Amino acid sequence: MKLHFLGTGSSFPTAKRGVSSLALQLDDGCVWLFDCGEGTQIQVQKSGVTGQRITAIFITHLHGDHLFGLPGLLCTISSQLGEEEAAKRVVEIYGPQGIQRFINTALLISCSPLLFRFKVHELVPAPQQYPQDFDDWQLGDGEPHHTPTHPNQLPGSSVTPVADEEGNLHWPLVDSEGWCVRAGWIHHRVPTFGFVLAEKERPGTLDLTKLTALGLKPGPVCRELKAGRSVVTESGRQVRPEEVLGPRIPGRTLVILGDTSDASPLAHLTQECDVVVHEATHGDALADKAAQYGHSTPAGAVKFAKKIGAKLLLLNHFSQRYTLADSQDGEESVSVLEVEGQQAASGSNLKVLCSHDLFVYEVPARPRTL
Amino acid sequence: MKLHFLGTGSSFPTAKRGVSSLALQLDDGCVWLFDCGEGTQIQVQKSGVTGQRITAIFITHLHGDHLFGLPGLLCTISSQLGEEEAAKRVVEIYGPQGIQRFINTALLISCSPLLFRFKVHELVPAPQQYPQDFDDWQLGDGEPHHTPTHPNQLPGSSVTPVADEEGNLHWPLVDSEGWCVRAGWIHHRVPTFGFVLAEKERPGTLDLTKLTALGLKPGPVCRELKAGRSVVTESGRQVRPEEVLGPRIPGRTLVILGDTSDASPLAHLTQECDVVVHEATHGDALADKAAQYGHSTPAGAVKFAKKIGAKLLLLNHFSQRYTLADSQDGEESVSVLEVEGQQAASGSNLKVLCSHDLFVYEVPARPRTL
Repeated sequence: MKLHFLGTGSSFPTAKRGVSSLALQLDDGCVWLFDCGEGTQIQVQKSGVTGQRITAIFITHLHGDHLFGLPGLLCTISSQLGEEEAAKRVVEIYGPQGIQRFINTALLISCSPLLFRFKVHELVPAPQQYPQDFDDWQLGDGEPHHTPTHPNQLPGSSVTPVADEEGNLHWPLVDSEGWCVRAGWIHHRVPTFGFVLAEKERPGTLDLTKLTALGLKPGPVCRELKAGRSVVTESGRQVRPEEVLGPRIPGRTLVILGDTSDASPLAHLTQECDVVVHEATHGDALADKAAQYGHSTPAGAVKFAKKIGAKLLLLNHFSQRYTLADSQDGEESVSVLEVEGQQAASGSNLKVLCSHDLFVYEVPARPRTL
Repeated sequence: MKLHFLGTGSSFPTAKRGVSSLALQLDDGCVWLFDCGEGTQIQVQKSGVTGQRITAIFITHLHGDHLFGLPGLLCTISSQLGEEEAAKRVVEIYGPQGIQRFINTALLISCSPLLFRFKVHELVPAPQQYPQDFDDWQLGDGEPHHTPTHPNQLPGSSVTPVADEEGNLHWPLVDSEGWCVRAGWIHHRVPTFGFVLAEKERPGTLDLTKLTALGLKPGPVCRELKAGRSVVTESGRQVRPEEVLGPRIPGRTLVILGDTSDASPLAHLTQECDVVVHEATHGDALADKAAQYGHSTPAGAVKFAKKIGAKLLLLNHFSQRYTLADSQDGEESVSVLEVEGQQAASGSNLKVLCSHDLFVYEVPARPRTL
């Protein structure tokens, strides 16, 4: 499982650094994309990510540097998919309310046919997520907006928040064999979400030598044993799963956040996490500016990462004022932010790294336990 | 006056070649942009074009590779403009009906403030411009669509076609001191326009030595003389404009087209032209494919360029199957298209060149005549 950082800059893309996008390549080869700023499809081409394998897209919020690359990316994926593969593919798109209006308007105005089908699942923000001036944008008038449907669109869902006993909110998104994905809200200038991706624990590896010695042949019995059910050999011996299965494979937890000045409303969703991706738009010297625009400094990101028991904090969404870490031009570079983060984390077990465009992080497996 | 080719590829952008965009840098420093595919703002940064000087944007048609970079470009220009300059700036945007819905949806959904103001002028296509399947896109239902207005938006216009005595159509767009810009329709899969930019003839240069010898001082009299009116010296002598003005400076004509399989419906708009920018998506070997998708080959572009008496034909919008001309990888390159165009033009006075990303063409002045 690998995280591919496609764009790690904020606000506007440059030739050297793209705007927000991050691809999670799963163990089965599928790719989940998080945010899709302008130029993401170019970054995908430069990376080791196979765009045609994107099956789900999660958008944290609707600012342009996280969104404007989406219609073009969808069109390009379509043009690269084989017809047979496309006919089977349904791309699931998750994002804040309003995203459907943007996607459909862009695809319909441009008369863009798609070979695959797609669904848009809109996350309905909680009232506390709206800034005071939101109505100025004339999008919160409460009137249902008639968005024509794309010919390849299947009905999506409207995901409303679920409250726990303490009133903490989450938005349930995916509950599949392998994953549970929930969104939580985080503070920013517009309704913004973070995603908590909990990989489910999987049964251990089958010991084929033991299996054969017991007189079993690989095949349907494997599925039974992996599902936790005993099987009976031809000679009538009952074989229990724990006799032939190795230790169970623990799931990992990833937290991927959008822009935020404070992600704490999401913290209740996990008490431990392998890696958290958190923005650090500005350094400590610009902490006031960061707060004013709903952004974080490395120290703020570290505070949150500690709160959720993260082992690794990967920073992204750097102001274009910070040059690339290896830049020779003597200006303030992203390295400054990395040092600030590491200083804030010193004395703890938290590791802090700045990401950069095309940086790949392989999420390590957790130790297996019996 | 310079043409900056920002993106010369078709369909999708790559790290090596952007999609459609072309900047015309006028003699007064203003920049007019033609088409704005995804990544145009990155190409602007790489080029010698000052994005903050863009005062008008012309979109030929609404396919994504000509349009999807527009919201991001507007946001980035705004972030780079000084407050004082921005307060005076009104960006005029011209494009086919529907463009306003796209721009406003993108800017409003993303809560994008702009420092400058803008107007959108929608060109209403003629009935013959609509393909048979256009209604499938649910945009031609005749119902006026309610598009909320951006806080910085001034009312634009709806430009309907004007017919001449023969029934030929044009859309009048700009009639300023320096320019007359008209659009004409051209054949493509969706309503598509080309733009005919006629620079107006200007008065010749004032001969300051003669002016002084006659007892006149530079100042308001210059404006009078340049406007073609005589002035009187303090001693009572009448000075006629032709006594102190050099030969008049002839205007140039540029034709900039969108995607097309046949631009002849626009040909009536000019009988002579300094430079025409015409697409050549495919080479002769793929002429059938070009026609099927509403595109041209170099030979088709040459045919049109001859029809309008062009001196120079600059080709663009190359299929990404054609590698860059200087590519070393042995695949079919854009050079093939240039050779085909030059062969089709051989024996005529027409010059043919393939453009490439960041290619700059300085439009020469015409010889002055008395």
